[in-house]
Amino acid sequence: DQSLKVFTLNSNRKLAEEIANHIGTTLGECTVAAFSDGEIQINIEESIRGCDVYVVQSTSSPVNQHIMELLIMIDACKRASARSINIVMPYYGYARQDRKARSREPITAKLLANLLETAGADRVITLDLHAPQIQGFFDMPIDHLQGVPILSDYFEKKNFEDIIVVSPDHGGVTRARKMADRLKAPIGIIDKRRPRPNVAEVMNIVGNIEGKTAILIDDIIDTAGTITLAANALIENGATEVYACCTHPVLSGPAIERIENSKIKELVITNSIPLETDKYIDKITQLSVAPLIGEAIIRVHEMKSVSILFD
Amino acid sequence: DQSLKVFTLNSNRKLAEEIANHIGTTLGECTVAAFSDGEIQINIEESIRGCDVYVVQSTSSPVNQHIMELLIMIDACKRASARSINIVMPYYGYARQDRKARSREPITAKLLANLLETAGADRVITLDLHAPQIQGFFDMPIDHLQGVPILSDYFEKKNFEDIIVVSPDHGGVTRARKMADRLKAPIGIIDKRRPRPNVAEVMNIVGNIEGKTAILIDDIIDTAGTITLAANALIENGATEVYACCTHPVLSGPAIERIENSKIKELVITNSIPLETDKYIDKITQLSVAPLIGEAIIRVHEMKSVSILFD
Ligand SMILES: Nc1ncnc2c1ncn2[C@@H]1O[C@H](COP(=O)(O)O)[C@@H](O)[C@H]1O
Ligand SMILES: Nc1ncnc2c1ncn2[C@@H]1O[C@H](COP(=O)(O)O)[C@@H](O)[C@H]1O
Repeated sequence: DQSLKVFTLNSNRKLAEEIANHIGTTLGECTVAAFSDGEIQINIEESIRGCDVYVVQSTSSPVNQHIMELLIMIDACKRASARSINIVMPYYGYARQDRKARSREPITAKLLANLLETAGADRVITLDLHAPQIQGFFDMPIDHLQGVPILSDYFEKKNFEDIIVVSPDHGGVTRARKMADRLKAPIGIIDKRRPRPNVAEVMNIVGNIEGKTAILIDDIIDTAGTITLAANALIENGATEVYACCTHPVLSGPAIERIENSKIKELVITNSIPLETDKYIDKITQLSVAPLIGEAIIRVHEMKSVSILFD
Repeated sequence: DQSLKVFTLNSNRKLAEEIANHIGTTLGECTVAAFSDGEIQINIEESIRGCDVYVVQSTSSPVNQHIMELLIMIDACKRASARSINIVMPYYGYARQDRKARSREPITAKLLANLLETAGADRVITLDLHAPQIQGFFDMPIDHLQGVPILSDYFEKKNFEDIIVVSPDHGGVTRARKMADRLKAPIGIIDKRRPRPNVAEVMNIVGNIEGKTAILIDDIIDTAGTITLAANALIENGATEVYACCTHPVLSGPAIERIENSKIKELVITNSIPLETDKYIDKITQLSVAPLIGEAIIRVHEMKSVSILFD
């Protein structure tokens, strides 16, 4: 199909190539460089007049650079007369700033939605938003894909005997439930609680983990504090082994060291954010979301429902 | 006046303090930090409900970081019920991307105007836009200040005998004319021309520079290629000494080395962009735009014309 063109910016070049491959095309030519003073210079090197353009970019670290690349690319596509500009954002950065937790805070997740709209985006295809409410921040169509099937399929192949899917906090119970359904397993929750002010938090485990293989699931693993503490608590309380998984491996600061030193046997992640080379440790297995996103692009382009991909 | 509050972000803290000082106030309290993964965390630490807020930020290097800080701050101000959000942007980054020079290029200067508007800015106070047409990219009021009076006043005090103000290219002639008027001097132009394709450019000097003190003026000095070649050509062609000046010292890449090794006797700049410490060389004199911007803020706040400041 000549009217479908996939471009990539700098956050996720390898994934974008895999996606183009899956669709049976190659990436469109586009230069993304920097002037001497650091300003981004984008030039689209082929005609996109009348085309449906898909731009692959996660707003992962360096997040502000990646956001500006994306906004400038959207502007360039708009001025080059693209028929539609579809943003493929495997990881939606700033998603945790999705409400005013304190007075006089910004709501940057909403700001980002507005910026994409202003620049000229027509649609967003994304994966596991930190809060599903972020879909409502957009006035354009948004296709919200899910990583749970990919992660579940991986664990299913391991044929574990006796497993439990554990959410490391209250916020993630719905996600744990989805994975547990697929694996026909019970769920557990790590229930952190501060008994009195200025007293250390207590990790209370809800659910019977005794003698079981526990699979911790979260959407984002950032500094890995929550997940590694949870893993260690599970082992201390009788789980035989602990696996962990997430869709978005932010893995900033002390994350890799914490994972290395934790009781986590294996950490399964996706390539919604590419791993920097110094972060490849033996414990980590990275699964590709390219087939999922590739299928989603094909179905969006053919105006078919995408929910079938993760129902 | 309790309703006027000045805040600064990270690009220009010292200038912002000088501006607040000039107005007779202190900077508002605001935390601009980063989360572990590099996402910007902004919190305004005092009430701004019903206030006219002035946010000082140049979109200088690191430009994408500084743009996002500004957009997020505007979002925070809007949600904190500021009465008006006024952006004080001494240096407007991406101003050179103000038209499509080639097919399928973005017009990032216009994109930036749209982003500021979307975030919630009500007004922009800026200084020497690379092209005055950028004013038309905004649908909100924009006060466009000029650096020429500040630079001219500095040179006037030197009481040079026989001077000529020279524009390093065609684009800057209007600016050179303004300075020449103030210094009661003639103007010259460096007329670069490529006689045939693939032949080195020739620097032709329009105007009589013989035995004169030449003052080169530009809006931006970035890599300093143009200005240092111009200075050397002026000396080779009979000028007795060459001064150079600009409003915006971008000074990226080889700029400092080039200036150091050039025939420029003194380079006069403003603090629209702060100089990094390793860029302070003896040849450079930095003038403050704080009094100009401070006056502009006072006059804007009192709903008086600001053009008087540079007419
Ligand atoms: N990039 C980030 N890293 C860590 N914390 C963040 C980040 N962005 C926002 N937050 C904070 O995380 C909290 C929301 O996270 P959650 O409770 O998991 O939805 C808010 O209080 C934010 O202030
Ligand atoms: N940050 C930058 N550094 C150097 N050149 C730039 C930058 N931004 C845009 N340009 C180019 O500068 C040209 C415009 O500069 P000018 O002719 O001085 O208005 C355009 O062709 C742009 O491609």
